[in-house]
Amino acid sequence: MTSSEVSSRPAAPSSLLDRVRAALKRAGVDALWVSDPVGVRQLTGFTSSEDGKVLITPQEATLYTDARYTVQAQEESRVPAFIARPPETYAHAKDGVSGLRVGFEATHLTVAGLEDLRGAWPDATLVPLRGVLQALRLVKSAEEIALIRAAQDLAGRVFTEVRPMIRSGVRELDVALAIETRLREAGSRPSFSTIVASGPRGAMPHGTASERVIGDDELVTIDMGAQLGGYHSDFTRTVAVGDPNAQLRRIYRAVREAEEAAVAAVKPGVRGADLDRLARGILTRHGLGEYFAHSLGHGVGLEVHEGPSLRGVSEDVLEAGMVITIEPGVYLPGVGGVRIEDLVLVTDDGYEVLSHSPKEDL
Amino acid sequence: MTSSEVSSRPAAPSSLLDRVRAALKRAGVDALWVSDPVGVRQLTGFTSSEDGKVLITPQEATLYTDARYTVQAQEESRVPAFIARPPETYAHAKDGVSGLRVGFEATHLTVAGLEDLRGAWPDATLVPLRGVLQALRLVKSAEEIALIRAAQDLAGRVFTEVRPMIRSGVRELDVALAIETRLREAGSRPSFSTIVASGPRGAMPHGTASERVIGDDELVTIDMGAQLGGYHSDFTRTVAVGDPNAQLRRIYRAVREAEEAAVAAVKPGVRGADLDRLARGILTRHGLGEYFAHSLGHGVGLEVHEGPSLRGVSEDVLEAGMVITIEPGVYLPGVGGVRIEDLVLVTDDGYEVLSHSPKEDL
Repeated sequence: MTSSEVSSRPAAPSSLLDRVRAALKRAGVDALWVSDPVGVRQLTGFTSSEDGKVLITPQEATLYTDARYTVQAQEESRVPAFIARPPETYAHAKDGVSGLRVGFEATHLTVAGLEDLRGAWPDATLVPLRGVLQALRLVKSAEEIALIRAAQDLAGRVFTEVRPMIRSGVRELDVALAIETRLREAGSRPSFSTIVASGPRGAMPHGTASERVIGDDELVTIDMGAQLGGYHSDFTRTVAVGDPNAQLRRIYRAVREAEEAAVAAVKPGVRGADLDRLARGILTRHGLGEYFAHSLGHGVGLEVHEGPSLRGVSEDVLEAGMVITIEPGVYLPGVGGVRIEDLVLVTDDGYEVLSHSPKEDL
Repeated sequence: MTSSEVSSRPAAPSSLLDRVRAALKRAGVDALWVSDPVGVRQLTGFTSSEDGKVLITPQEATLYTDARYTVQAQEESRVPAFIARPPETYAHAKDGVSGLRVGFEATHLTVAGLEDLRGAWPDATLVPLRGVLQALRLVKSAEEIALIRAAQDLAGRVFTEVRPMIRSGVRELDVALAIETRLREAGSRPSFSTIVASGPRGAMPHGTASERVIGDDELVTIDMGAQLGGYHSDFTRTVAVGDPNAQLRRIYRAVREAEEAAVAAVKPGVRGADLDRLARGILTRHGLGEYFAHSLGHGVGLEVHEGPSLRGVSEDVLEAGMVITIEPGVYLPGVGGVRIEDLVLVTDDGYEVLSHSPKEDL
C-alpha cells in the first residue's frame, strides 16, 4: 500500500486485495485460503486469534468465523463474513473453489487442516505457498509506520518511568509487572512477555521475568514492546545495578560497539546477512563471537517477529519502509549476559532509530 | 500417571514415556516427533513456547531447542537436550529415525514442517497422528488436580477482590487490568486475555475487555483464569450493575438454571454431548436455545481448552479425574448476554465444583 492510498483511505481493502491477487497470479494460483490469524487481520481487519479464516477468489473475499464472533466480525471486518464452523465453512466455500488452484499458507496450515480441505474440496487443487502474505508486509505504509512509532514511543516512555525501580532487592517479576501494567493502562498491551533477566539469568536470551530478586552490582536486561492497533514495537536495554565487575563492563562495551556499528550501516540495498556479519565480526574481535547465540535482528509489524531476516544465511535485502531490530547479545552461562536492541526504520537515504531510550555508559 | 506414582516422584519421566511408547505402539508407529509446545512441556517440563521439539524413539527421548534456551533447557527439561536449529536439528535426529515409522502431530505440524522432515529424513516413514498426547492428558493426576485447584482458588480470590470495582463509570479495561495485575503479583498469569463484556458487548461471547465504560443497569460478563505451574483455571460470572431490566433478568435466570442442571448431572460415564443437550434443552424451553452459540464446555489442564469436549457432536465420555468447564451462555446481538461457567472436577461418584465464587440472584 502506498502512502497516498493510505492518506485517502486507511487500509484500503480493494487495493490490498488487488495486490494479493497479483501476487497469487505470480505464484500460479487462482485463489488463497488464509488460516493464519495474522494474515486474516492483514486482509480483513478482523482481530480474533481463535477462529477466523479468509478465502480470496478472483471475484470475492470472505471471512469465515463462528457464532461467538458474529458481532465482532460485523464491527471489524472489511470483507463480508460468513458465520459457520467446519465442516459448514468448507461446504459454503466449495462451489467457489471448484476447478481452481487454491493456494494455502504452508507454514501455517497443519497437516490435519490440509487433509480436511482436501476432503471437503475434491474439485480444487490445493497448492502450498510460502510467504505470499508476509512478502506484502515487508515494506510498511506511512500509516503502519505511524502505529509502530507510536507503540515504540509508548514503550520508551514506560521504560523511563519504570527505570528507577530496577535496583537491588526488587523482584524481576515486579519490574515486568510495572511495565505491563503501565502499557495496559495506556490501552496497549505487551508485544510479548516482558523479559527481565538479572545477574546470571542474563545468560538466557529469552529469560522471561522470574521471582529472582535483583542483586548488587549486576546487569539487568529488559526486553519489552508495546502493541497498538495490531502493530508491535520491540527494544532492549541492559542496565547496571550498582557497580558491575570489569568482565561485565567489557562485555557491555563490546555489545554496544557492535550494536551501534550495525545500526549505522542500515540503508536500502544492504543485506540482512551483511549486518549480522558486521556485528558478529566486532564481537569476535573482542573474543565474544561464540557467545552471540542468535541472529542480529528481524522485521517488526503485525508480528513481533516477521521479515526481513537479519540472520547470517538470510538473502533479504533492506528497502526503505522496512522496520527492523538490531539486537546483538552476549550470553555467558553462569556469568550473565548483555543485549542491546534498537528498533530501526529503513529510510530512503539510511535509517531512523525509533527507540530513543538512553544506553548505559559502562 | 497414577496418583501413587505422583506422590513418590512428581511427573515421573520414565513412566510417562512408557505410557507414550505404549500409545505409539497401539497407533502403529515406532517413534514420535513432537512439535506442539504443549506436548513438549507435557513430556519434558521445558516451558518455552518459541523453540522446542521432542523426538521419542524406542530407546531415547531428546529435547531439541536453540542456543537461546541452553540454560533454560538445563534447568527445566527431564530429558537430555540437544542444542541446534533446523536443519542441524533434523540432521542430528536422522540416524535415530532411519527405517522407523515416525508419528507426528497432524493437528500441529504444518505442511511446510512436514515437507522439511520428509526432506531431512528420507529413510523414515512419517505418519500423521491425531490426539495421541492429548489422550494421555484427559485424566489428571492428583498433582495436576492440585495445581488446577490452586489456580482456580487464586482466580476466585482475585475475582472477589476486584468485584467491588465492577460498577457504572468504570472502563472494562481497568477491571481486566486489576484482575491481571493481581494474578501477576501472585506469581501467576492470566490463562487468556480476561473477558470483560458489559451491556451490548455481552453479546460477544469472547469480548476481550475494551475501553467501553460500564453503564447503569447493565450486565457485565467476566471470564477469567489463572495459570500455575503450567496448568490453567477458567470460570465466568455475569454480574449486575444497578438494576438490569426484566428481559436481562429472565435471560440470567434461564442460563443459571441450565448451568446448575448440567453441573448436577456430571459423573463418570456421562457423555459430554448429553450434558450439552441437557443445558441446551433448558434454554430452548425458555425460547433462548438459538442464542446459545457455542458448546457447553471443554477440558482444562496444560491447555485452557483441551479434551474432553462437551459439544453436541462429541463422543467423549466423562471419567473420574477429568476437569471440565460447564458454561452455557445466551447472546442477543444489540441487547447483551449472559454466561455462567464453573470449573468442575469429575469424581468417582459425581463431581466437585472447583469455582466457589457466588452467583447473582436476579
